[in-house]
Amino acid sequence: MAIKTREEYIESLRKLKPVVYMFGERVTNVVDNPRLRAGIEATAATYEAAHREGARDSMVTMSPLIGEPVNRYTLPPASIDDLVARVKNNRMLGKRVGTCFQRCTGLDCLSALSIVTYDVDQKYGTNYNSRFLEFLKYVQKNDLTCNAGVTDVKGDRSLNPSEQEDKDMYLRVVEKRADGIVVRGAKAHQTGSLNAHEIIVLPTRAMRKEDKDYAVAFAMPTDTPGIVHVVGRSTLDMRELQGCDIGNTLYSKNCPTVIFNDVFVPWDRVFLCGETEFAGDLVVRFSAFHRQSHGGCKSGKIDCMCGAALTMMDYNGTGKISHLRQKIIDMIYRAETLYGCSIAASYEGKKQPSGTYYIDAVLANASKIHEGREMAEVARMLVDIAGGFVCDLPSDKDLDNPEIGPLIKKYLKGATGVPVEERIKMLRLVEKLALESADSVSDIHGGGSPEAHRISIMRDSDLESKKNAAKRLAGIKK
Amino acid sequence: MAIKTREEYIESLRKLKPVVYMFGERVTNVVDNPRLRAGIEATAATYEAAHREGARDSMVTMSPLIGEPVNRYTLPPASIDDLVARVKNNRMLGKRVGTCFQRCTGLDCLSALSIVTYDVDQKYGTNYNSRFLEFLKYVQKNDLTCNAGVTDVKGDRSLNPSEQEDKDMYLRVVEKRADGIVVRGAKAHQTGSLNAHEIIVLPTRAMRKEDKDYAVAFAMPTDTPGIVHVVGRSTLDMRELQGCDIGNTLYSKNCPTVIFNDVFVPWDRVFLCGETEFAGDLVVRFSAFHRQSHGGCKSGKIDCMCGAALTMMDYNGTGKISHLRQKIIDMIYRAETLYGCSIAASYEGKKQPSGTYYIDAVLANASKIHEGREMAEVARMLVDIAGGFVCDLPSDKDLDNPEIGPLIKKYLKGATGVPVEERIKMLRLVEKLALESADSVSDIHGGGSPEAHRISIMRDSDLESKKNAAKRLAGIKK
Amino acid sequence: MAIKTREEYIESLRKLKPVVYMFGERVTNVVDNPRLRAGIEATAATYEAAHREGARDSMVTMSPLIGEPVNRYTLPPASIDDLVARVKNNRMLGKRVGTCFQRCTGLDCLSALSIVTYDVDQKYGTNYNSRFLEFLKYVQKNDLTCNAGVTDVKGDRSLNPSEQEDKDMYLRVVEKRADGIVVRGAKAHQTGSLNAHEIIVLPTRAMRKEDKDYAVAFAMPTDTPGIVHVVGRSTLDMRELQGCDIGNTLYSKNCPTVIFNDVFVPWDRVFLCGETEFAGDLVVRFSAFHRQSHGGCKSGKIDCMCGAALTMMDYNGTGKISHLRQKIIDMIYRAETLYGCSIAASYEGKKQPSGTYYIDAVLANASKIHEGREMAEVARMLVDIAGGFVCDLPSDKDLDNPEIGPLIKKYLKGATGVPVEERIKMLRLVEKLALESADSVSDIHGGGSPEAHRISIMRDSDLESKKNAAKRLAGIKK
Amino acid sequence: MAIKTREEYIESLRKLKPVVYMFGERVTNVVDNPRLRAGIEATAATYEAAHREGARDSMVTMSPLIGEPVNRYTLPPASIDDLVARVKNNRMLGKRVGTCFQRCTGLDCLSALSIVTYDVDQKYGTNYNSRFLEFLKYVQKNDLTCNAGVTDVKGDRSLNPSEQEDKDMYLRVVEKRADGIVVRGAKAHQTGSLNAHEIIVLPTRAMRKEDKDYAVAFAMPTDTPGIVHVVGRSTLDMRELQGCDIGNTLYSKNCPTVIFNDVFVPWDRVFLCGETEFAGDLVVRFSAFHRQSHGGCKSGKIDCMCGAALTMMDYNGTGKISHLRQKIIDMIYRAETLYGCSIAASYEGKKQPSGTYYIDAVLANASKIHEGREMAEVARMLVDIAGGFVCDLPSDKDLDNPEIGPLIKKYLKGATGVPVEERIKMLRLVEKLALESADSVSDIHGGGSPEAHRISIMRDSDLESKKNAAKRLAGIKK
Repeated sequence: MAIKTREEYIESLRKLKPVVYMFGERVTNVVDNPRLRAGIEATAATYEAAHREGARDSMVTMSPLIGEPVNRYTLPPASIDDLVARVKNNRMLGKRVGTCFQRCTGLDCLSALSIVTYDVDQKYGTNYNSRFLEFLKYVQKNDLTCNAGVTDVKGDRSLNPSEQEDKDMYLRVVEKRADGIVVRGAKAHQTGSLNAHEIIVLPTRAMRKEDKDYAVAFAMPTDTPGIVHVVGRSTLDMRELQGCDIGNTLYSKNCPTVIFNDVFVPWDRVFLCGETEFAGDLVVRFSAFHRQSHGGCKSGKIDCMCGAALTMMDYNGTGKISHLRQKIIDMIYRAETLYGCSIAASYEGKKQPSGTYYIDAVLANASKIHEGREMAEVARMLVDIAGGFVCDLPSDKDLDNPEIGPLIKKYLKGATGVPVEERIKMLRLVEKLALESADSVSDIHGGGSPEAHRISIMRDSDLESKKNAAKRLAGIKK
Repeated sequence: MAIKTREEYIESLRKLKPVVYMFGERVTNVVDNPRLRAGIEATAATYEAAHREGARDSMVTMSPLIGEPVNRYTLPPASIDDLVARVKNNRMLGKRVGTCFQRCTGLDCLSALSIVTYDVDQKYGTNYNSRFLEFLKYVQKNDLTCNAGVTDVKGDRSLNPSEQEDKDMYLRVVEKRADGIVVRGAKAHQTGSLNAHEIIVLPTRAMRKEDKDYAVAFAMPTDTPGIVHVVGRSTLDMRELQGCDIGNTLYSKNCPTVIFNDVFVPWDRVFLCGETEFAGDLVVRFSAFHRQSHGGCKSGKIDCMCGAALTMMDYNGTGKISHLRQKIIDMIYRAETLYGCSIAASYEGKKQPSGTYYIDAVLANASKIHEGREMAEVARMLVDIAGGFVCDLPSDKDLDNPEIGPLIKKYLKGATGVPVEERIKMLRLVEKLALESADSVSDIHGGGSPEAHRISIMRDSDLESKKNAAKRLAGIKK
Repeated sequence: MAIKTREEYIESLRKLKPVVYMFGERVTNVVDNPRLRAGIEATAATYEAAHREGARDSMVTMSPLIGEPVNRYTLPPASIDDLVARVKNNRMLGKRVGTCFQRCTGLDCLSALSIVTYDVDQKYGTNYNSRFLEFLKYVQKNDLTCNAGVTDVKGDRSLNPSEQEDKDMYLRVVEKRADGIVVRGAKAHQTGSLNAHEIIVLPTRAMRKEDKDYAVAFAMPTDTPGIVHVVGRSTLDMRELQGCDIGNTLYSKNCPTVIFNDVFVPWDRVFLCGETEFAGDLVVRFSAFHRQSHGGCKSGKIDCMCGAALTMMDYNGTGKISHLRQKIIDMIYRAETLYGCSIAASYEGKKQPSGTYYIDAVLANASKIHEGREMAEVARMLVDIAGGFVCDLPSDKDLDNPEIGPLIKKYLKGATGVPVEERIKMLRLVEKLALESADSVSDIHGGGSPEAHRISIMRDSDLESKKNAAKRLAGIKK
Repeated sequence: MAIKTREEYIESLRKLKPVVYMFGERVTNVVDNPRLRAGIEATAATYEAAHREGARDSMVTMSPLIGEPVNRYTLPPASIDDLVARVKNNRMLGKRVGTCFQRCTGLDCLSALSIVTYDVDQKYGTNYNSRFLEFLKYVQKNDLTCNAGVTDVKGDRSLNPSEQEDKDMYLRVVEKRADGIVVRGAKAHQTGSLNAHEIIVLPTRAMRKEDKDYAVAFAMPTDTPGIVHVVGRSTLDMRELQGCDIGNTLYSKNCPTVIFNDVFVPWDRVFLCGETEFAGDLVVRFSAFHRQSHGGCKSGKIDCMCGAALTMMDYNGTGKISHLRQKIIDMIYRAETLYGCSIAASYEGKKQPSGTYYIDAVLANASKIHEGREMAEVARMLVDIAGGFVCDLPSDKDLDNPEIGPLIKKYLKGATGVPVEERIKMLRLVEKLALESADSVSDIHGGGSPEAHRISIMRDSDLESKKNAAKRLAGIKK
């Protein structure tokens, strides 16, 4: 069976030899680097779930394309049930890993391509869709993780791609050859690029005629020559490297900058090349799917944050304090709002010409608007409930120090019967959940920045129908 | 066919002879009273929709109980599709009438009773469910509108029903007879009691053993001897009576206080009588259904408010002002939030032992929490966009005055090409939508007060599972 | 002594014969019209306070201009103490009247003119300031109330005054004569124009060269030939006319549209005429003063709303409910925010060339931004606390009805020992405080619409200094 | 002259030999430890300002106690001007250091003690105030920095101090001797304890009779035998140790846990010992002063955050984007709200029996409520404006790498003409400002947790006067 186990997935990554830099140094063993491994484990949780009692049924389904069971993270939605399963699996996994599991972005690319390549072919008689389906079969048969290369570095945001001083500020085709194309550029915030087997590149915005070279989509292995991953800094990055004070003892996240240094892409891996008017369509579809995804995983993360808050209340002896219980409610209803709008977007999805299902974009964007505003509120309430030690808790290394270890254990005790070590662990998890940047900034910028969600909602709402309803009531003939 | 037209509905109300007081005087002709008629028209819109091209298909369905097509407002949900149709019809009608159409509360009572009467019978071997089904057949066959008599006047809120100085502050059984019971009490905020054929009374809260007399549910015609409807004051009530400056030229709302002055109820109309532990269940089910309902109608009302705002921007010449367009987005996404959570609650519904479907209560309450907080925000933005004339627009009577009419028409002009009369009408509609109290206070108190929704969410969430997720990540053994 | 009593003020209004229309009819006796009288009483409270023990000391001060004690509502601020007294008196009176007392707008005009007329004279050698000071002496000596005629009706908001199809959409000079000017136009939302002796007209916006005719400021008695006051509709306007269910038994508000139908203004009452670049300055100064004023009166209104909420809790038996007490805190801190920023704006004021003191505009606008967002929240919480009867309470006329009066009194009872009549009165006051439009819409649009406050803050903040602070910390040389 | 320079201050710290642990190891040279030095430099900025042109005049004043000029951070307020200067200096310094300068907490203790020791003496005939004044003279003459030891570790929050299983969970007197007392306990979140010469310990809450041993206040040098400082972890702590990617290149913050391991305190340093009813008064006074302080420094920090946001807009080429400019306004008005309420609290201060001035506590708490809610919003907007690189920007070490350095410099370029290094530096500063925990958690928990501020506002507001205002308007006789 093609569905990999956690172990098989991790082994498969060992075979890749990506070019990786972190903090000024080349990393040759990605899989065993403690900082990077924690992120890989988060993606591995999506493989583990496919074999775990209780999760397997919702994680594995039959692919109509290859006629075999596949992990749902390789399946563009072919039904309303598929759309709904996306959100439910994301919530389950978001709660389980307490951070980003970094496998949905690739699926969101696959889903967008499975709609748009078909539409391009319809208009231009190209064969992007068949190329794409071949690639998709390969992904499904090998149960691969894909990375979404969408966000260009953008240079001067007031200029279009072709107007930039340096033409490479958006990824572009620098050469077309008989056997393929050569691309150059850089994609920022590449969530889980080191957990992935393949990078799928899409345009980051709508393009005009003069930006033809930038209207390009393709997929390549993460260790293709010319591709360089640069792991940047996040707030708690050193903890994993130092092996202490990690908070989330199992999982983490990375989102490198990925540079495409004149990378060759053979034609069978090219899914768009110059059809400018479809560039915007690809990114709009991807973004809407990704906003739907967030409605699942982020509500799952809030579940986990609520659990941490409630446990801290138990540990602090504050479980019955009325204003803290109110804050728990404030956290829960925000989770349900993200989830509710996202799952509604799924149930209200529609079949597209290619056969793939697409969510209701207005509802998906409503979910994301709440995420962008309210996750920060949830984090704030979690910190409020947990207490000030979130920002200055002594290190676990202090606990091991013979002179001050006993003192710290004495003074960090909470409610009777709660082992002090557990209280410390939970405080550390709260710090990770509330204050780690790689995950929390994605609340704001993931799936496009807040303004993008707002514009989408305006564009996709039927304003005339609303006006007509008002005019009828006011007694205005129309 | 049993499905009444708008005209048949209105004629059927003429046959009722309820005892009604308004502003100190007895009202004998309810149907032709201009203030009351506008509310009746709003309910009539639910009848009209059952015959209107484009609405009929979603408004009419086959009743499994009577094997005939019925208006959905008489149908307890027997499937997920039924649950979803509730929200969609409510949104369509909320947008169409721009206020409350006052027919969902009765359906929400029917839905709650169709679940709970079955459960009571299972426990006690009573026959409430069969009585209820007979009543329901009668409602469906005659396409009746029911009113929900839930909210007791409550007296001193710090005391239980049986602890009150005056024992009638919650409606109660004052006499049990061979042929029925006699009840006494008063129900406040009876939305559309004068548009209804029947009043369905449910308890307003959970009851304890000692409150046995208060655990009572039944249904009676609105003109039963002993029932008195007192129409109270809302902010714009005089406009309809005076026939000018009405704003919403078609529809309105009323919510009388209904007094039960020793009303006799025959046993076949009694659906609960003394089984105290089911009192809370009835009100919880009713409330959850009603919060789901609001997610539909109130998002529809926001559609209408957006339409009014957008039209005012056209009329004022401010259609391209960026901050106003942002406010439109802020209005829209709130509508979609109410709607998304409510429709998600529907899709995630579950079949109950009686066969009736029940929504996901956490999601329904999440929708209502947003309503309680955000409808006021939406109204505020509407006023911001429309301008200050919302609070001091000259009367239509001034327009007709030969001396100042021409001056007012001159000075109230907006953008070129917009007839001044239309601008005035739309401003008046904005006033109605934003500042009429009978409808807008239901944003806050309808379906239970805000705190009730919050408590529901806490009660129905799985807190232990959330704690366990956090503990696992923190490395705490469980 | 020049300082009028409440009675003298009311008598002085009797001598005026303004042309007034309300609801299509001419009103000849303004003072005794019950709807208009309640507004007059609110302004009268500023006169009464000048003679009331406990208020007199803060309300009366010595005028440096006329060397006599005056009511502070005729005094442009000549010191920091004067600025602070404005806010404190406004809070005291806002709390006392529970609505707008309608005398601050005139003072805010006087204050703006006392700065800007001086500046115009400095530049152009005109004598506006001496004309203005003569007018101010007259106001102070006779303890007059002035009305602020600022907001033009504006027509198409996308066009400048001189670009409008109808040139009269902004008030303008239509004729210049040897003895004065003739003006035409209309001013909307003229808070208290019928409580005032004089109308002071200022431009409503900055003007360009081509809008020269619109750069005009002057003062004229409210009953000058050609001036027409049209009293528009507010949500509860009929209650006062009908003499029942009034809520605030003492005070109310009116804000007519005032039409200037070719009104002659003698030169000694003209304070700006064609100096376009000062038009913006006048409205900016007026608005900033007026936003400071609101920080006082609206926090006083919240005091009153808190009082109503707390009393309702007493009457309902909910005084110890934790979530309601939290809402009281949410109401109080908003009052203190409005007040704090406004009083800070006063203490941080600066002397202007004319000798008049001007507030810190950024702080005054911060106060107003909170008002625009938070007063609606306060009203929402008040309704939440008070309960649903706010929107459908039976009329006092029902109480007097022999058949249902006793029933209503029985069922509207609250906590033991609270007379039912008092509970009813307080519910009615809550309705007035939360849902009356003439006053509550001024939370949003008074002193300019919300966007105006935001732009003011941006304009008056030192952005470069903030950038430099950040650059220094980032290690960027500048 | 007693006023130390930055250099003298740093040298004076070298003479102290506190017992310090960090990450499991003893730190013997605090002053030269790069992580700790950055915090010391922030406090040093308060010394530097006393000698810097432009700041000196507001930073230095004459002490009435010692008759010499002193740094204001050693001066309990003896006038309204002193109260106001506190806030203005804090804002200036908060903007200058972009984090906490860690010297106000000690002053807030001095201010509280200067009021309460006098009151205790009045009641009990003790001589705490003269002891305190001797200590204060010493502080002023030597221009010392004091640390506020207020927050006990608290153990089980549902139990009072004397009810705890381990009696040391609140700091207490374990022995009274002829020459002094011996204390034991631990104080958490000791902002700047390693930048301070003296620790001033106050009780953390009101005490009951049975908690007599916990009602203790005193001051001792930070290197007193038995005192152990444990520096905990904050999100970006390793950056300073590693010497790269620091963001704020000049300043930082530390807040150790300070353990009192049977510390001897001579009587002349004891300022409260067993007078339980004054314990609450001390912490209430301290907290109110500290909330006022935050209104200054945090608005200054927002100034700096606005500067960073505006600079990022310049660097990204997004300076004219309307929705980003709106977010700048949203940031600015929040700064002004904190500042306005805090400065209003100062101007409205009152003289206390000891001669020290005390702020208006309601206004100070209003400021802090906004801080607790709105600083997180400001940070969220800053991240929104700056872009996603805030969470994954490559390290400066990558820039120095010969292979990828040039690539990164190429792809991180922003608007034309902006050196890429400056864009990187500013992004790093944004990360520090928005996501560093030691400072940002103090927005929530500094000066007591959010609920504490709310309770204070309720307690200090005149609720009866508000009720009476409402009753008068409703026509209820009282």
